[in-house]
Amino acid sequence: MLYYFFTYLDKNFDFPGAGVFQYISFRAGMALLVSLLIGAIYGRRLINLLKKFQVREKSRELGLPGEELKQGTPTMGGLIILASLVIPVVLFARLDNVYIILLLMAALWLSFIGFLDDYTKLIKKKQNWLVGDRGIRGKYKVFGQIGLGLVVGLTLYFSPNVLVREYQNPTTGQYESIVRSSQSPSRDVKATTSTIPFLKNNEFNYRFFGNWGFIDLTWLLYVLVAIFVITAVSNGVNITDGLDGLAGGTSAIVSVTLALLAYVSGNVIFAQYLNIMYIPYSGELVIFCTALTGACIGFLWYNSYPAQIFMGDTGSLMLGGVIAVLAFSLRKELLIPILCGIFLIENLSVIIQVSYFKYTKRKFGEGRRIFKMSPLHHHYQKLGYHEAKIVSRFWIVGIMLAILTLVTLKLR
Amino acid sequence: MLYYFFTYLDKNFDFPGAGVFQYISFRAGMALLVSLLIGAIYGRRLINLLKKFQVREKSRELGLPGEELKQGTPTMGGLIILASLVIPVVLFARLDNVYIILLLMAALWLSFIGFLDDYTKLIKKKQNWLVGDRGIRGKYKVFGQIGLGLVVGLTLYFSPNVLVREYQNPTTGQYESIVRSSQSPSRDVKATTSTIPFLKNNEFNYRFFGNWGFIDLTWLLYVLVAIFVITAVSNGVNITDGLDGLAGGTSAIVSVTLALLAYVSGNVIFAQYLNIMYIPYSGELVIFCTALTGACIGFLWYNSYPAQIFMGDTGSLMLGGVIAVLAFSLRKELLIPILCGIFLIENLSVIIQVSYFKYTKRKFGEGRRIFKMSPLHHHYQKLGYHEAKIVSRFWIVGIMLAILTLVTLKLR
Repeated sequence: MLYYFFTYLDKNFDFPGAGVFQYISFRAGMALLVSLLIGAIYGRRLINLLKKFQVREKSRELGLPGEELKQGTPTMGGLIILASLVIPVVLFARLDNVYIILLLMAALWLSFIGFLDDYTKLIKKKQNWLVGDRGIRGKYKVFGQIGLGLVVGLTLYFSPNVLVREYQNPTTGQYESIVRSSQSPSRDVKATTSTIPFLKNNEFNYRFFGNWGFIDLTWLLYVLVAIFVITAVSNGVNITDGLDGLAGGTSAIVSVTLALLAYVSGNVIFAQYLNIMYIPYSGELVIFCTALTGACIGFLWYNSYPAQIFMGDTGSLMLGGVIAVLAFSLRKELLIPILCGIFLIENLSVIIQVSYFKYTKRKFGEGRRIFKMSPLHHHYQKLGYHEAKIVSRFWIVGIMLAILTLVTLKLR
Repeated sequence: MLYYFFTYLDKNFDFPGAGVFQYISFRAGMALLVSLLIGAIYGRRLINLLKKFQVREKSRELGLPGEELKQGTPTMGGLIILASLVIPVVLFARLDNVYIILLLMAALWLSFIGFLDDYTKLIKKKQNWLVGDRGIRGKYKVFGQIGLGLVVGLTLYFSPNVLVREYQNPTTGQYESIVRSSQSPSRDVKATTSTIPFLKNNEFNYRFFGNWGFIDLTWLLYVLVAIFVITAVSNGVNITDGLDGLAGGTSAIVSVTLALLAYVSGNVIFAQYLNIMYIPYSGELVIFCTALTGACIGFLWYNSYPAQIFMGDTGSLMLGGVIAVLAFSLRKELLIPILCGIFLIENLSVIIQVSYFKYTKRKFGEGRRIFKMSPLHHHYQKLGYHEAKIVSRFWIVGIMLAILTLVTLKLR
């Protein structure tokens, strides 16, 4: 909102300093600062409020060290993450931008689903059509994620403002996303292209697999991929959220990386210089990404070891979903396995553990385990590593994966 | 070194992929990855080696929680920081660059001084001209820092490759570091200018204070400032280094920020777009900064709470000095009070505590204290905060200060 206000001041009254709101870099920096401050200042109030209403983590008896300390720590901290994400975005981003609208909606929707889940876990109501024995029934949670994937996929596919810039290759006359010469004519087109890591001068195009000549099912493929990506990353963060500061810190690292990707993808000068796909209007996403980074880091003020609050599904479903939608909007969803490697590994550790257990149970009569415990972070706890040490090492691996993601853009 | 090798391959044999070494962004990413890997992989070996030679932290009896755990933890971990900084820089940076030579020298020199200090503390030799009762005598430590400041100040002042680009203002005909139009003629000049935070279109020029008409003492002023900045930041990191992961993490945050500043200052397109002083040849510093970031973060693999190794003076003197020289080379030394705010506050907390104690002792006969204990991080420990929590909150404040630093570049 401040963007419109200061732009108005700048245009009509030549108000000193108001012109700085034109710059995405300035608004992004301010969004990050404001979100950090909201998290660090109002987090304390939310903790007191949640304690008052007895919103507490249920007892866990997994035989892990430090478990008794976690008893009675309030959950649903995702509410403060949501507030410190949405407020700076509303203040500093342009609200007529299709990407910003989509992302705000995704954040609110997934927080709502997560909140329902946390809330129903808490009140121990009788089971009904919506509520199962542990939170809301899985099918409604998945239904929420599918619904979001549908909206995101269709919006990105059909919105006239979701475009990619193409430049004419002076040799072949073809249009492609790489600039060969500064004099090349360019055009903004609707396209279903996406960046492929490591491969040079080539983009993945969903149309290649979706268009069967007699019928064009690209939109369906696009929507299915959106649903898959959102569900996978969202559940990934949900599973990762098991140690103090783990999901928050890892998400912060991912969102800084997305901020950089958004900055270079949304700025025509930088995109041309770095030979990266230019996506018109996507620059505003930088502000969303930095607000997300600030929201995650600000949350760590209270959530880092030893934690005074947990994010709950309210936070983890939202963080994962929003990261997925961001990557999809920036056409970098094929980089997710690298960038979100931590979430992927955590997800896989559960799948491997459960499948192997079932398989050996069927084959040998007794279930065997590969990890001492899943998800992976509990495996290291069982091995005797200190919780704080596991978390900082997972962060460091997250940073390595983030750099690898950025390097793939050049390594082509 | 790899730069020359691959450039040679690219030029002479059209070796596929070798051209990517032209890009600073690629080499910077690789330097960061390699330094992280060196720290995380070889750190373990260094710990074993140091343990074997009984290089252990001396007993501290300050009445702080968790002290007994720190007994016997090896120190001198700065050696692994040095290795994971120097190796990637030698591999990926251009070694004929004046800034890179200066920075490598600074890192080696300060590590050497710090090592001498750690080593003499350890072996408890008889005191002599070099060695006092706690490590090497203070005057030799300061002498080392002054020597470095002298070399850095004089090199930057006199080297023909340390330049700033200026553009002609089409209205006034004057040359200044801001581009008014893309057709403006430009020139690279030796200048003693430095960026002032918050002030628009104005640069601080040491010549303004150093040139007295009948005699030009600018070089002396420049050298004195270099000595002051290097000594202050170096001691700041030294004092900050008192909790697991505190100095390493804070230095990592500072060096990421310096990497961004180096990237935009050393790239003519980005510098023009962002209206920032363009400093020819400074782009190579990005590689130094990312290697430094990787060295700090890689060190945290073992140094984060609960720490298996401490950096010692070998690490802290070097980190602080190198940060100071980087800021000075990028002509951003006036931003240091914001960017290195954590080091400044820690430094001040000691100065305030000691001065107030002396003052009250003289005035009232008994010394009084402002903090429960100095440096500041011990004050919070005495207040009952968990060590890991204090560290993560100091990091978060460090991140806020880093963003503030970047925002000042636009807020002018």
